[in-house]
Amino acid sequence: MEINYDTIKVIAFDADDTLWVNETYFRDVEHKFAQLLSAYETENTIDQELFKLEMKNLPIYGYGIKGFVLSMVESAIELSNGKISNKVLSEIIELGKEMIEMPVELLDGIEEVLEQLSKKYRLLVLTKGDLLDQERKLEKSGLTKYFHHVEVMSDKKEKNYTDLLQHLEIDVNEFLMIGNSLKSDVLPIVNIGGKAIHVPFHTTWQHETVLPNEESDEYIVVKNIVEVLNYL
Amino acid sequence: MEINYDTIKVIAFDADDTLWVNETYFRDVEHKFAQLLSAYETENTIDQELFKLEMKNLPIYGYGIKGFVLSMVESAIELSNGKISNKVLSEIIELGKEMIEMPVELLDGIEEVLEQLSKKYRLLVLTKGDLLDQERKLEKSGLTKYFHHVEVMSDKKEKNYTDLLQHLEIDVNEFLMIGNSLKSDVLPIVNIGGKAIHVPFHTTWQHETVLPNEESDEYIVVKNIVEVLNYL
Repeated sequence: MEINYDTIKVIAFDADDTLWVNETYFRDVEHKFAQLLSAYETENTIDQELFKLEMKNLPIYGYGIKGFVLSMVESAIELSNGKISNKVLSEIIELGKEMIEMPVELLDGIEEVLEQLSKKYRLLVLTKGDLLDQERKLEKSGLTKYFHHVEVMSDKKEKNYTDLLQHLEIDVNEFLMIGNSLKSDVLPIVNIGGKAIHVPFHTTWQHETVLPNEESDEYIVVKNIVEVLNYL
Repeated sequence: MEINYDTIKVIAFDADDTLWVNETYFRDVEHKFAQLLSAYETENTIDQELFKLEMKNLPIYGYGIKGFVLSMVESAIELSNGKISNKVLSEIIELGKEMIEMPVELLDGIEEVLEQLSKKYRLLVLTKGDLLDQERKLEKSGLTKYFHHVEVMSDKKEKNYTDLLQHLEIDVNEFLMIGNSLKSDVLPIVNIGGKAIHVPFHTTWQHETVLPNEESDEYIVVKNIVEVLNYL
């Protein structure tokens, strides 16, 4: 399969699990959450019930750590039948604050890739999540200098991308998106006529999981972010 | 005092308590919060302690309802010395969800003002708060059609405005901001050389309160949003 990238002028990167580690922290906190509630349910049930509640709350809270923490508090009350101690609830809130203040751990090779690509292309960050949280992570990352623009989006559906490209006056034929989520970074982009490169991360949030196509001729998949330099 | 608005091409509006009612809902919920905790402290102490905790958490959570709810949960645990019931904590979380889903109540005359001004100027919304929450309120408001661009900002300090104007390629000499917060909508704008009109709302969050200057020659104050039409 050959995809031609000669028309590309603007490259957008997803942030969480594309530029830096993120999902791993959520998995860690979910595991700690299950331990805090181990008197009431198995880890498996706790995981499932928390995920169900997160999905129920998603239209209200949106993406990001604060909504996740609120769902953990609510879930702890439900799973314990209203018996969870104030102490455990305080620990849950503390886990959330620690997540927000976590240092940023860049993925291997990302700085080299951005340095190379920023010489030839206009680079953007397009991310979901809490506005302040994402701005802070970008600042901590030291990567701000490579990007012309950073957009924190409330969602990453086709319409969100179409509106954004229009606002930024970017021709979709000149646009390439690079990210770890097939559902949020790749499929909506190819559906609106743009190009995308999928860089899977070892951990994917259940909400972001879609079954990959058999070999697609609409996007390529690379094992490591550094491989994108072979195409661009 | 005469301020000349002839150079203005772009007018930005704050959203909460400028386009629609907001602070009133926070005050209502704070009052309900104090009632839920009335077994432990006076309303006055509860108000003060919650505000103190909000300020402590602000650098971590940023602005918006979700951070406010997390601070209420934490404050309830503290104020009750770890004795608050799960039932009350569930009610606090529910209060937060109700706030997020509250219908949008436009301030008097705002639609007329936007309709008039949109014929002569490029109009923007510049607001703090949760990204999804503010996007949703704008959509519910029916006002989207008047605005060229909506920006949810993580803060409204001089640097945030300078960066944004640069990004949007707006000359500060052609820029006017209209809002209810002297601290966030007016003073930073006049400090960077732009123009501003202050439209006070009857309720101001303590965090946004600054002492008004004696009569300023840098911005004007109007009693009602409709009065801006006398100047523009």
